[in-house]
Amino acid sequence: MEVFNKTYTLKNCSFVIDSEKTLENTNIIIENGKIKSIGKETEGDEIDCSEYVVTPGFVNSHTHSAMIFLRGYYDDSELQEWLDKMWEKERSVSKDILKISSELAVLEMLSSGTTAFVDMYFNPEDIVEISQQYGIRAAAGYTFLDKIFDPEEVAKMQRRLRETNLFKPIINVHSIYAVNEKTLLLAKDLAEEQNTWINIHLSETRREIYETKLRKGKFPVEYLHSLGITKFQAVHLGWVASWEIEMLKDSVTVTHCPTSNMKLATAGAFPFYEMMNAGINVTIGTDGPASNNSLDIIREMKNAVLLQRHSYWDTRIKALHVFKAATENGYKLLGIKGGLIKEGYVADLILFNKDDLYPLKKDRLLSNIVYYATGENVNKIIINGRIIDKKFIKEKIHELAKKLNELI
Amino acid sequence: MEVFNKTYTLKNCSFVIDSEKTLENTNIIIENGKIKSIGKETEGDEIDCSEYVVTPGFVNSHTHSAMIFLRGYYDDSELQEWLDKMWEKERSVSKDILKISSELAVLEMLSSGTTAFVDMYFNPEDIVEISQQYGIRAAAGYTFLDKIFDPEEVAKMQRRLRETNLFKPIINVHSIYAVNEKTLLLAKDLAEEQNTWINIHLSETRREIYETKLRKGKFPVEYLHSLGITKFQAVHLGWVASWEIEMLKDSVTVTHCPTSNMKLATAGAFPFYEMMNAGINVTIGTDGPASNNSLDIIREMKNAVLLQRHSYWDTRIKALHVFKAATENGYKLLGIKGGLIKEGYVADLILFNKDDLYPLKKDRLLSNIVYYATGENVNKIIINGRIIDKKFIKEKIHELAKKLNELI
Repeated sequence: MEVFNKTYTLKNCSFVIDSEKTLENTNIIIENGKIKSIGKETEGDEIDCSEYVVTPGFVNSHTHSAMIFLRGYYDDSELQEWLDKMWEKERSVSKDILKISSELAVLEMLSSGTTAFVDMYFNPEDIVEISQQYGIRAAAGYTFLDKIFDPEEVAKMQRRLRETNLFKPIINVHSIYAVNEKTLLLAKDLAEEQNTWINIHLSETRREIYETKLRKGKFPVEYLHSLGITKFQAVHLGWVASWEIEMLKDSVTVTHCPTSNMKLATAGAFPFYEMMNAGINVTIGTDGPASNNSLDIIREMKNAVLLQRHSYWDTRIKALHVFKAATENGYKLLGIKGGLIKEGYVADLILFNKDDLYPLKKDRLLSNIVYYATGENVNKIIINGRIIDKKFIKEKIHELAKKLNELI
Repeated sequence: MEVFNKTYTLKNCSFVIDSEKTLENTNIIIENGKIKSIGKETEGDEIDCSEYVVTPGFVNSHTHSAMIFLRGYYDDSELQEWLDKMWEKERSVSKDILKISSELAVLEMLSSGTTAFVDMYFNPEDIVEISQQYGIRAAAGYTFLDKIFDPEEVAKMQRRLRETNLFKPIINVHSIYAVNEKTLLLAKDLAEEQNTWINIHLSETRREIYETKLRKGKFPVEYLHSLGITKFQAVHLGWVASWEIEMLKDSVTVTHCPTSNMKLATAGAFPFYEMMNAGINVTIGTDGPASNNSLDIIREMKNAVLLQRHSYWDTRIKALHVFKAATENGYKLLGIKGGLIKEGYVADLILFNKDDLYPLKKDRLLSNIVYYATGENVNKIIINGRIIDKKFIKEKIHELAKKLNELI
């Protein structure tokens, strides 16, 4: 892991691309973890970037990192059966397996260009440690799931989580069908107490809509609003009602997980276009390694376009929309000035191998990243100005994968 | 490129998996390009395969290899506009660009585990040459497309194509809307003359169905049958009528291209389950690099499951179905005894890096290949007993990509 703490220059970047612009043959000066300037000047150490295309780092806005140990397990079942199988295994899993799984997940995400992620699982104390160890940004928290955990215990542990330069505590609630109303109100209080947001799977299946309407007389977003819960991150939203979109304007973000939705056959349609036009912050997540089963956010951007176009019967969702969702919008969710390659923004950057993105032409670059590339084409990852080399990550993955194979 | 012409053993393969079985710690003896036996014996040179998972080679049953030069061009438009843009560029492209594009496509396909492909484009003479050069199996032919080519000229060139040990001539017809009836009948005669099949885009869009019904009074499959054209490869079939499925029992194969269908927003639903149950040979294709834009058949298997599950609102299409479509069924289409790891079958095999497919467990292997892996996890490719190393392919790709970037 190469570290440049002070001032250095990414020199002669063949292309620099973010959701606002594409530049050619440009230098980026980085100072104390931030972008100092973009242009012809150099300062400090120089790194030749003529073989790289530079983009902002990607934010994986929804995953369950520790579920690597369940990758490939009970893959071909429907959501409810699949969830039951997962919960069964999760009750008895060891802390060692969870830790090593989250570590592997983080390495996979880094390797494919993710510089920050939002995690929903039961081991945020591991995430605090792992985020420091590898220098990745993370938002995580203990998860309310009444079937498995006592909510008072969850709250107690949650109160011990502290923000760091890389880690942000969030309040994870599995879903409205996995907790009772009292737990939801407790989560609301905790979110206010820790000045953070509630992260929840919402309106994922027809069954969830039907049962919420039956039991509460309301649709899921309406139901949360009726409890005074409005500032949340809503994940999935495959079956959101049109009038709920108005309510979602108060949300922190709406997160699309197209691969997981398709694989678990939840059907429905995440109203990407309508929510984007309503000014809602649309983000993208891979979901967990047991439901995707990849954590490659670049593959996920493509799948978001694919599912959206299939749903709308037209091409209104473009490469730029999902690229923005995975960069600019992701950093907006985290409350960090990042996701764009601009002066004063955090130096969270991805260096793609230029030679992999052929035909290499300015007006095709975005397409080639979104529709053709995978995380494999990422060469270096920079977070807070700290450069992480791909080779180091790959070696670490193989080392840990061997350990995991022995443990399970 | 390592070549083993005679007899050798893939020793201690950690796992061997095809659509019929999964074996552990097994040897595979290969002789004169065929699988001689599977078990504990060894013969000839030995290759340590304890770090590999062995699968049959994959067949990419539909692509347009030369369209690499159009990758990323006009990506965000609807099908008809996109086609018009493609045809405009294709009228003026040089032979050099086509050749280098097809060569790159072949290298990309090899690199991601494709051992055979079916190509529809205008340069099958290049495919004959490239298939010999790299040792990949290919089926290709000149393409009838009345707007661009004189059909008599196409027929003349087609008659010059000869079968080789690796190459099979086929009769490519772009679509029923891109040729007239006379051309369709000419294609039918040619297919009989060359003892091969007609490969055609069929029932891809609502517009195609509507216009065929309007002009011919028939649905697309009905229309071909009314002309006595029954033994064809039908690609796309997003909008096939239920009674046409009966007729498709006479077809050589039906080919699903899920990524392309989603990206071009053609919507519809390829009736995978119904056709499979009707005993029709279902295969999978990436479609061309301008409409996918990847040629990775492993990513395509996943996307086939994803789209199918989204369409059916349930998980009836499993990893095994698409794996079989890309292996066993692909070889059935080509009329080659392959696609299974069995005595007497061709030695067309893929060696995956075992360490990449974690958690490595016998009952999760198929899932991890279909849902998690990409072509990047392929280490070696064996076709007809000939071993191709990944490193050689990667170097060649970078060399040719640089040339292509200069040409366009």
